[in-house]
Amino acid sequence: MNNKTERLKEYAKMLINKYGSPLYVYDYEMLKKRCEDMSKLQKQLENALAKKVRMHYSTKANSNPYILETVKEAGLYVDCMSPVELMINKKCGFKNQEILYVCNNITAEEMKLVYESKILICLDSISQVDTWGKQFPGTKIMVRINPGVVGVGHSEKVITSGKLTKFGITEENFEELFEVAKKYNLTIIGIHQHLGSLFLNDKIDNYIMGVKAGLNLIKKHFKNIKIVDLGGGFGVPYKPEEKPLNLDIVSEKLIKVLKEFVNEYQSVEEFKFEPGRYIPCEAGYLIGQVTAIKHENGQYYIGTDIGMNQLVRPSMYDAYHEITIFGTKSEEKIQANIVGNICESGDILGKNRTITLPNIGDLVVVSNAGAYGSSMASNYTGRLRPGEVMIYKDGRIEKMKDRETETNILQGLYFPKKYKI
Amino acid sequence: MNNKTERLKEYAKMLINKYGSPLYVYDYEMLKKRCEDMSKLQKQLENALAKKVRMHYSTKANSNPYILETVKEAGLYVDCMSPVELMINKKCGFKNQEILYVCNNITAEEMKLVYESKILICLDSISQVDTWGKQFPGTKIMVRINPGVVGVGHSEKVITSGKLTKFGITEENFEELFEVAKKYNLTIIGIHQHLGSLFLNDKIDNYIMGVKAGLNLIKKHFKNIKIVDLGGGFGVPYKPEEKPLNLDIVSEKLIKVLKEFVNEYQSVEEFKFEPGRYIPCEAGYLIGQVTAIKHENGQYYIGTDIGMNQLVRPSMYDAYHEITIFGTKSEEKIQANIVGNICESGDILGKNRTITLPNIGDLVVVSNAGAYGSSMASNYTGRLRPGEVMIYKDGRIEKMKDRETETNILQGLYFPKKYKI
Repeated sequence: MNNKTERLKEYAKMLINKYGSPLYVYDYEMLKKRCEDMSKLQKQLENALAKKVRMHYSTKANSNPYILETVKEAGLYVDCMSPVELMINKKCGFKNQEILYVCNNITAEEMKLVYESKILICLDSISQVDTWGKQFPGTKIMVRINPGVVGVGHSEKVITSGKLTKFGITEENFEELFEVAKKYNLTIIGIHQHLGSLFLNDKIDNYIMGVKAGLNLIKKHFKNIKIVDLGGGFGVPYKPEEKPLNLDIVSEKLIKVLKEFVNEYQSVEEFKFEPGRYIPCEAGYLIGQVTAIKHENGQYYIGTDIGMNQLVRPSMYDAYHEITIFGTKSEEKIQANIVGNICESGDILGKNRTITLPNIGDLVVVSNAGAYGSSMASNYTGRLRPGEVMIYKDGRIEKMKDRETETNILQGLYFPKKYKI
Repeated sequence: MNNKTERLKEYAKMLINKYGSPLYVYDYEMLKKRCEDMSKLQKQLENALAKKVRMHYSTKANSNPYILETVKEAGLYVDCMSPVELMINKKCGFKNQEILYVCNNITAEEMKLVYESKILICLDSISQVDTWGKQFPGTKIMVRINPGVVGVGHSEKVITSGKLTKFGITEENFEELFEVAKKYNLTIIGIHQHLGSLFLNDKIDNYIMGVKAGLNLIKKHFKNIKIVDLGGGFGVPYKPEEKPLNLDIVSEKLIKVLKEFVNEYQSVEEFKFEPGRYIPCEAGYLIGQVTAIKHENGQYYIGTDIGMNQLVRPSMYDAYHEITIFGTKSEEKIQANIVGNICESGDILGKNRTITLPNIGDLVVVSNAGAYGSSMASNYTGRLRPGEVMIYKDGRIEKMKDRETETNILQGLYFPKKYKI
């Protein structure tokens, strides 16, 4: 058991009894700390570069209003990618200029909503720029580029090598982009790039290399860009052996590259970043309970009520989440697969974990469940999505979301009248 | 384009305009046909074996009441695995004896609900039998066994070889099972086994081998079993080169094995099967629209509004679904990745599909979306879950489920009052 889950121990049982099992629980102090990490990085960069720097929390990691409120308190902005996320951002009091719409393959209708909401949009293909331009000629947009390679190798020349992704516009098509922009009199005021998912200390240099690749493309091809958005990617440790990202090193290395860029590329006014996972991930826990203990074919299986519908990452990405069991201390150490309650063989929360033999009813705590946990949950096999609560330093608990009920499931569902056949 | 999607063509545009995009659409005739396939198989087996045979549709494949009603009309029963599925089954008029609760790692509380509902339960570990027995001594249960190997090789002797799965009780632990059952005076009236997911014609013999393995275990170890439940597994063709399962061959081969079993094992009164996917899969389509066409790094990407949250199978299992585009006939054939609107690199609906170059707004039809489609959908990135409709032979359309709205998302969600820190 680590220190973080230790703190949870005094609350866990009471919370499960009160709000049902499983339950998403967030630690406000940790969430606040991660937000502050980002505002600190923001300030360091601003001071060093003498340019505006804005961190837009990526709503898709966790769109609960309590998470967004904490983000807001830390002076961070948001990005979103659907009308629902935009609505929640607005309801949480973010102003238009604090919201960025970073989307992929949206309809003309959705673009209209963004336009009418006066939110800056970042479009990620020439096709989408065309669809936008037809409707809203003469407007300002950001576009997402694909620098082609994310710090692979040490040569910045290989940036056009074929990284196959559905996102962004590659260098070979910039001329076409400019033609389409010109056709509709669009001003490309910002360039966005996202270098992929979480990186930790061993990948900082690769990240910086990717940043450089993007900046070089901007210098080479784009004029009068005001905003450079470097996306997200700041990682968090999931595995016990992983160390937290050293943001001071990130900051130092970023300052070096960005300073160079600022000196050469005068029009730039602002840098944006889009941290997602980094902010809520470590603050969130998913708490459930042991429902069965079985030993078959020389393998222990610890059954729980935490199915793949509640936290899909282990089943979907083979992602590692630390699992702690709160229970009677047993001496017997076992290796076990911790599994859920869904009738599907892939419904495994953690493989080959060393734990002490638990009892039925012991609580199961899954760490790092704050990002892409509740936001990806489903009702598969009729299981209800969990409630969510925030714990504050003084022990105060706020309900963030009700546990679903059968009524939620029945909403919008039609039952047939008996057919006449 | 195949014949099945051709029939859809006349409706698609109207449906999307009326019910929103994307939309799940079901073909009642196809659904009915697949239900009838199962009732035919049921009758063939009943006649040949002179025993009761019951087909329980596995609700988790698709729990919409219109699907369940069609299942009911064909004289089929259901199985379910959560309180919500049980509730929907009951609301659809299934009687207690027509419902089977086939579960995995459920809580004592959930067992109580099943007991009080007077539904036969199938428990899948000794641990769960213990939890049940403590609460409800002297009752009748079914248990799930793990025959260890599913038709691998041709020797039935290898049945204890280590197939690692969280389901069922293996032969080595039957004695312990009997002790626990005895302790609580439980009568094991039925044995369940499930041989894994979809099989087609090339795997019929493996399926039969697995059935034999299970039956041999029953003969060897269990006395006075009344019900033998052989689970599901009947496959459907997903890929163009796959042929439909020949149920006459399945029937013939099953009859041979089951007849032998019936002759040797006199107490058996009933066989059960649990077809899931087979019934609604081919009847269901997910219709969306083309939102972007891009060509980068020598690769075409066709952007659509069908994100991984709407149909998770391609992202989750790398599953193949046929994709047809309804649009202006173009001569130009291209190879393209068909992708969704979620900002995640795994959000790919189909890889390297040969299609004619579409236009923005063309309709995209995903086949075989009737099973594990809407039932696994989520609100990831704030995307709303689609509406669902059934098309009847005479062109009548019934609404099965409303498209979600922002109101659904806001339900149960709390917005914080400004903190005093």
